[in-house]
Amino acid sequence: MPDRSRLTMDRPTPPPPPSPPTTTTEEASDGGESPALRRLRLLSLHLHEPSLTLDRGLAMIPCSSRDRRVEASGPALAAYLMSPHRDIQLRVFEFFRSRPELQTPVEISTDDHRDLCMRQLTALVREAGIRPFRYVVDDPSVYFAISEAVGGIDISLGIKLGVQYSLWGGSVVNLGTKKHKDMYFDGIDNLDYPGCFAMTELHHGSNVQGLQTTATFDPVTDEFVIDTPNDGAIKWWIGNAAIHGKFATVFARLILPLQGNGGDSADMGVHAFIVPIRDLKTHKVLPGIEIHDCGHKVGLNGVDNGALRFCSVRIPRDNLLNRFGDVSRDGKYTSSLPTVNKRFAATLGELVGGRVGLAYSSGGVLKIAVTIAVRYSLLRHQFGPPKQPEVSILDYQSQQHKLMPMLASTYAFHFATLYLVEKYSEMKKAHDDAVVSDVHALSAGLKAYITSYTAKSISTCREACGGHGYAAVNRFGILRNDHDIFQTFEGDNTVLLQQVAADLLKQYKEKFQGGTLSVTWNYLRDSMASYLTQPNPVTARWEGEDHLRNPVFQLDAFRHRTSRLLQSAATRLHKHNRSLGGFGAWNRCLNHLLTLAESHIESVILAKFIEAVRSCPDKKTQKVLKLVCDLYALDRIWNDIGTYRNVDYVAPNKAKAIHKLTEYLSFQVRGVARELVDAFDLPELVTRAPIGMPSEAYANYTQYIGF
Amino acid sequence: MPDRSRLTMDRPTPPPPPSPPTTTTEEASDGGESPALRRLRLLSLHLHEPSLTLDRGLAMIPCSSRDRRVEASGPALAAYLMSPHRDIQLRVFEFFRSRPELQTPVEISTDDHRDLCMRQLTALVREAGIRPFRYVVDDPSVYFAISEAVGGIDISLGIKLGVQYSLWGGSVVNLGTKKHKDMYFDGIDNLDYPGCFAMTELHHGSNVQGLQTTATFDPVTDEFVIDTPNDGAIKWWIGNAAIHGKFATVFARLILPLQGNGGDSADMGVHAFIVPIRDLKTHKVLPGIEIHDCGHKVGLNGVDNGALRFCSVRIPRDNLLNRFGDVSRDGKYTSSLPTVNKRFAATLGELVGGRVGLAYSSGGVLKIAVTIAVRYSLLRHQFGPPKQPEVSILDYQSQQHKLMPMLASTYAFHFATLYLVEKYSEMKKAHDDAVVSDVHALSAGLKAYITSYTAKSISTCREACGGHGYAAVNRFGILRNDHDIFQTFEGDNTVLLQQVAADLLKQYKEKFQGGTLSVTWNYLRDSMASYLTQPNPVTARWEGEDHLRNPVFQLDAFRHRTSRLLQSAATRLHKHNRSLGGFGAWNRCLNHLLTLAESHIESVILAKFIEAVRSCPDKKTQKVLKLVCDLYALDRIWNDIGTYRNVDYVAPNKAKAIHKLTEYLSFQVRGVARELVDAFDLPELVTRAPIGMPSEAYANYTQYIGF
Repeated sequence: MPDRSRLTMDRPTPPPPPSPPTTTTEEASDGGESPALRRLRLLSLHLHEPSLTLDRGLAMIPCSSRDRRVEASGPALAAYLMSPHRDIQLRVFEFFRSRPELQTPVEISTDDHRDLCMRQLTALVREAGIRPFRYVVDDPSVYFAISEAVGGIDISLGIKLGVQYSLWGGSVVNLGTKKHKDMYFDGIDNLDYPGCFAMTELHHGSNVQGLQTTATFDPVTDEFVIDTPNDGAIKWWIGNAAIHGKFATVFARLILPLQGNGGDSADMGVHAFIVPIRDLKTHKVLPGIEIHDCGHKVGLNGVDNGALRFCSVRIPRDNLLNRFGDVSRDGKYTSSLPTVNKRFAATLGELVGGRVGLAYSSGGVLKIAVTIAVRYSLLRHQFGPPKQPEVSILDYQSQQHKLMPMLASTYAFHFATLYLVEKYSEMKKAHDDAVVSDVHALSAGLKAYITSYTAKSISTCREACGGHGYAAVNRFGILRNDHDIFQTFEGDNTVLLQQVAADLLKQYKEKFQGGTLSVTWNYLRDSMASYLTQPNPVTARWEGEDHLRNPVFQLDAFRHRTSRLLQSAATRLHKHNRSLGGFGAWNRCLNHLLTLAESHIESVILAKFIEAVRSCPDKKTQKVLKLVCDLYALDRIWNDIGTYRNVDYVAPNKAKAIHKLTEYLSFQVRGVARELVDAFDLPELVTRAPIGMPSEAYANYTQYIGF
Repeated sequence: MPDRSRLTMDRPTPPPPPSPPTTTTEEASDGGESPALRRLRLLSLHLHEPSLTLDRGLAMIPCSSRDRRVEASGPALAAYLMSPHRDIQLRVFEFFRSRPELQTPVEISTDDHRDLCMRQLTALVREAGIRPFRYVVDDPSVYFAISEAVGGIDISLGIKLGVQYSLWGGSVVNLGTKKHKDMYFDGIDNLDYPGCFAMTELHHGSNVQGLQTTATFDPVTDEFVIDTPNDGAIKWWIGNAAIHGKFATVFARLILPLQGNGGDSADMGVHAFIVPIRDLKTHKVLPGIEIHDCGHKVGLNGVDNGALRFCSVRIPRDNLLNRFGDVSRDGKYTSSLPTVNKRFAATLGELVGGRVGLAYSSGGVLKIAVTIAVRYSLLRHQFGPPKQPEVSILDYQSQQHKLMPMLASTYAFHFATLYLVEKYSEMKKAHDDAVVSDVHALSAGLKAYITSYTAKSISTCREACGGHGYAAVNRFGILRNDHDIFQTFEGDNTVLLQQVAADLLKQYKEKFQGGTLSVTWNYLRDSMASYLTQPNPVTARWEGEDHLRNPVFQLDAFRHRTSRLLQSAATRLHKHNRSLGGFGAWNRCLNHLLTLAESHIESVILAKFIEAVRSCPDKKTQKVLKLVCDLYALDRIWNDIGTYRNVDYVAPNKAKAIHKLTEYLSFQVRGVARELVDAFDLPELVTRAPIGMPSEAYANYTQYIGF
């Protein structure tokens, strides 16, 4: 059963809009607490939570209990949200607006879509002069901005671009060395060399170290021989392979004859190789390579995914992407990294940009869906009081429940992914180990969390828009189908969350061995001890609005939960490890570990949102953002209220107050919902849905079908 | 955050499979309780819960704490699940198996799909000799069995069949009188008269009483004149209208000139009229009617939905479907029902069969998705302990968490919808008022609950099957897209749940006025008083497996929740009614009311599942079903643990035990998962997905794409 009303069987009383939730006289005096309780709380903060007191400045932003009228300016909000690279995004939009024949129709066959998608990409690069490749390394934030805009045109195009520049191009520049850049950069950049990223096999997706394709060095000819040893090793789902690709970065086990124990072959683990797959001139598939079309997909049908089988395909030794490991003329292996595992980690580590891009783009897709759903919900009127006009469906508590926390999450993801892009750019410049490790876990966590949330939300938006949400022209179908696989590719979400959990546990262990924690989980260093004490039975009962809307309380709640989950996971793993071994213990605690990872990511997202509210220079805009941030925080707490109740972090009265306030904040956000979605500043070229037009939506819709 | 592990921050210790959850020595003696506690509990049962003691027989079915090895026989399970109308389903399958050219390809354009869908339907009726129409009234359970089988061939075909026979045909036979049956039955039956059900308008879907199309009686010519007064009144989403329909049942306000106050026209409310829309011979759209194609949809593209505008379209007076209200030659209105509202309710009431069919078919779609996902999860191996073979992904706790409660729900829905079909058949035979009212609320609730659950679950299945789940041939895309609108048509789920809540409140009111309750909520009559007492602090702490797996406890928990929600909703509505009026009060409590409705439906589903377990004649099969039923019950309780905790119905230790046992039962169900899905007995013609084949799945898959 959904979480709408867990408490209501105990008779909560949501406040009558627009009057505020009732507070007792005692509470009303200051932040919902008596002077005695306040002293106690401040004392407790001084004793236990030094880092959080830094946030108390934000608590001073008046919350709406003091001024009930929330007003928002769409343009002011938009200005605060605007990407620093809006100029290049506008160039993308302007180009496609001027070329209607390049816009994707509502219905299109797979064959036509693939053809159109390639023409869109080629025109963007060669006619509009948008050259994304240089930004992949030099200024990733520009690359992601382009990618977001292009995904707004057609998500297939965004992915096609990503395959070419981030995966194929990225593997060459990040895993190769100067010789590779010299030879391939221009061809990749100008699309003379369309390419693929051939990692996944039929039998192995998540477990990359289990790949079975081999690349055996032949010292006689100074070549590698690429082979598919069995059907399970067929490269599968390879984007750009079915039709357009001329090259592929193929991930294969490097086999060196005579280098193993006793003169056997040595398996050096998975490495990446550039393999030409089609003739540069005739475009014929090269000998020894069998390519089949993976066929029609749930979505992203503009991208031509193929399956490849290699039979003794020979490539020059230079085609090994040799940044992290090389083979000499006489078949000897050299590497700056000591072990197979370290080389593997370094190789995969270079590919983390894809995850950053997906987290960022997924937030962009959510913006489109939420914009259409909110605008239509404002437009749509259905039922009403007797003998009175029908009311907007966004005035129904149930519709607010579906869409307002989602709108708040969209804002939260905006700031979190901006932060992720910043950190990633920093990593690409500095190559600092702590930043690398931080970005890896953060990108894994945000990619998993945001894409899962967006996937569910698009379905909710469709359902919330009823029958008209089911018209293909109104976009929810294609957004959902195209976006769906964001949960899987570049790392299955369930696997990525485990990486986050593993990283947290590593940091936890290091902390207790006196080490330092990386930036994102500083809070664990500062306050683990205080979080692991029993919850304070006094604060557990505080229910005043000012307390619940205080970011100190909100962050404390999120971090308390994460800290408890981390500590208990570590203890359980330690215990089970003895009887079940590492693998068995991990599996026994798997649901727990996934919850831990999500809890951590939610606290990172909230912290970034609170920072963004604090940094907002315009007071009116700041007030609106504070409202949205409070809804985000309290909705997430309410969503997991069972956990908080079970450890008595919140008492029943407080749980009830959180629920009541969440409903009230949803009601308040509904009052500025139009401005909040306008602030995403999506051009009609991107939203497209007739029912999502800012005006004349019904007329647009009837015209569209021919009236 | 999902509900995987709310409690785990307090260090739960899931039991090591396959050993049982640990119980204390004291608990182990009998049902997890000391003799003293047991006396107390029995005493409490005698005092307060007479109806529940009837279920205690079931508690005697040994649960797996006494015998850990759960074994299942697919065929024995299948025999127990088998539809009594399997024979006609097999005829459907056999026919389509013999006609490969009538099977829907993985990719097909909207135009071709519509054409194919009509050919499929025509062949089914005229070549296979399956004639569904007679069963719509005479034996609905046969009709639903045909509909389920046909939906297994292509959901579009199932809906096309439903439009023709249940909506168009059903409106004629249920809302019309003998003259209509005489004139239309054969043509509808043999498809000479393909027709539409033209209710929804651009501006009005859920609010049927707000429809604006008019049918004005012209006493001069003895005709009705059908008009679309404005663009908002254009009939929209009308299935069969864009291409194939020759008739439409048009819902319009009946306007009688001179019959109103002071000689004005009288608006008699919404009535249904048969309107020919295309020429029977030339198939040309008739004069005064404008039809446009609603175009490409998210799914169900085999069905041709159109939009219709009427301009002074004249039809004979006889075309009024006059079962509940008629117009005489001189323009006077007669009806056996006294008010507009009663006539409206009777009219819509006759259409409830559509909801029954959707609830039933939705369960069928869920069976397909779960079967594919479980089989692939057993096949797929990924990662494993060091130097050991990779393990099946269904061995991961996270995958069990995604799929095993879903499998349990699929079983639960099977029995609940069988019951619904039985009750509906009973209603069609007996026309007993109490049964009518029961079926209305039950069909609304089950349709809403099951279709929402299935919609979410198909997405979960896709995600659980990773990249291969994204191949169109593996079915999740089309199942999700086609099924998606099940949540909206035949009554938006959010609106339907409100009908359930309204019905519960009506019954609640009647109870306190001395009336009787209808069959499905008998439990409220029996035990409302006991549920509304404070939870027993002793039983709230019981955590033994036998107690948690006792259906008496499970039903009590579900019913306690519903009773509390009902009582608190009534109180809140009463309170808000004074200040906000009926509409405002309802909206203020809307989330609460939706939760109440879902809670009630869940208790109905559980009760039917428990009955089905009890009635199973084969002991081994019964034991497996009991396991699945326990997982269903405990998963639902855990899913809403916040509610139970907040009213202290369960203490923290019990919440932890429920979570632990839910994980353990998921692990046990995983052990018989293959047999449980085999028991659905879906032919490969229906599952189709290569990855969902019972054997040789990978080989099927590689062959499919050309290797």
